[in-house]
Amino acid sequence: MLCFEDFPVGRRFDFPSRTMTAEEIVAFATEFDPQPMHIDEAAGKAGVLGGLAASGWHTSAVMMRMLCESYIDRTAGEGSPGVQSMEWKRPVLAGDTLSGHCRVTEARTSRSRPEIGIVRFVAEVTNQRGETVAVCDYANMIRVKAGEASADAHG
Amino acid sequence: MLCFEDFPVGRRFDFPSRTMTAEEIVAFATEFDPQPMHIDEAAGKAGVLGGLAASGWHTSAVMMRMLCESYIDRTAGEGSPGVQSMEWKRPVLAGDTLSGHCRVTEARTSRSRPEIGIVRFVAEVTNQRGETVAVCDYANMIRVKAGEASADAHG
Repeated sequence: MLCFEDFPVGRRFDFPSRTMTAEEIVAFATEFDPQPMHIDEAAGKAGVLGGLAASGWHTSAVMMRMLCESYIDRTAGEGSPGVQSMEWKRPVLAGDTLSGHCRVTEARTSRSRPEIGIVRFVAEVTNQRGETVAVCDYANMIRVKAGEASADAHG
Repeated sequence: MLCFEDFPVGRRFDFPSRTMTAEEIVAFATEFDPQPMHIDEAAGKAGVLGGLAASGWHTSAVMMRMLCESYIDRTAGEGSPGVQSMEWKRPVLAGDTLSGHCRVTEARTSRSRPEIGIVRFVAEVTNQRGETVAVCDYANMIRVKAGEASADAHG
């Protein structure tokens, strides 16, 4: 399992790719964000987004899956306190293939819980044309290697 | 339809309530955030969250649905450029009933597109004990009342 020490500033993790189908865009939006441009192709084409467009929260959820597959699944993580910012920069339309990467921007141990590190990342989601569709600045709590915190405490 | 002028600073919209079932927590997480505490009750109980806990992104998606029902469904909206911050402050466990409200914190017209207003909100999601589980600071683009922008342009 990856621990805090495995996340130095600058380390990058690449995302797997995933194609967004019209069916899943409509299914997510029907449940969570039933605005016309997310559930009806004609409404999407007539509007500013230019087609049947995924809810921004759907893009964010897909990004989360990409984070899981790129590092969280094999990390001694303790969740996240939230995100500093989540920008939806371009529409994600049915048929778009998303990918991207994340990079560590800051890494420090917690003052109150020295067995936990706080690692900040910027994740960038791109489409098949290499355009950035979403950017997220967020943090994860990640355990330090077993023994080191207590060794420090005794040193 | 509600327009920019209907969103003065301080206006509040109350959310409908919604109970989070174990089934939907597991279904969302299986697709988007398959960490053990989100898909397995025993893992959730053994961990820091204290039970089968919704992915933070699931809570955010449910908040989006509450925003739709409280005002977006009847607003002349043009989407959102993203969120300034999204904090997940407490675990959302299976069986919790969520509700909450949002409030306008800032409202101005766009310099480049005077027919559009930019309205900033803070949304707060609470549980059945009145505890805040999530806070989101975000903006919506909302059209000004028809005719007023062009009247200004000619005045």
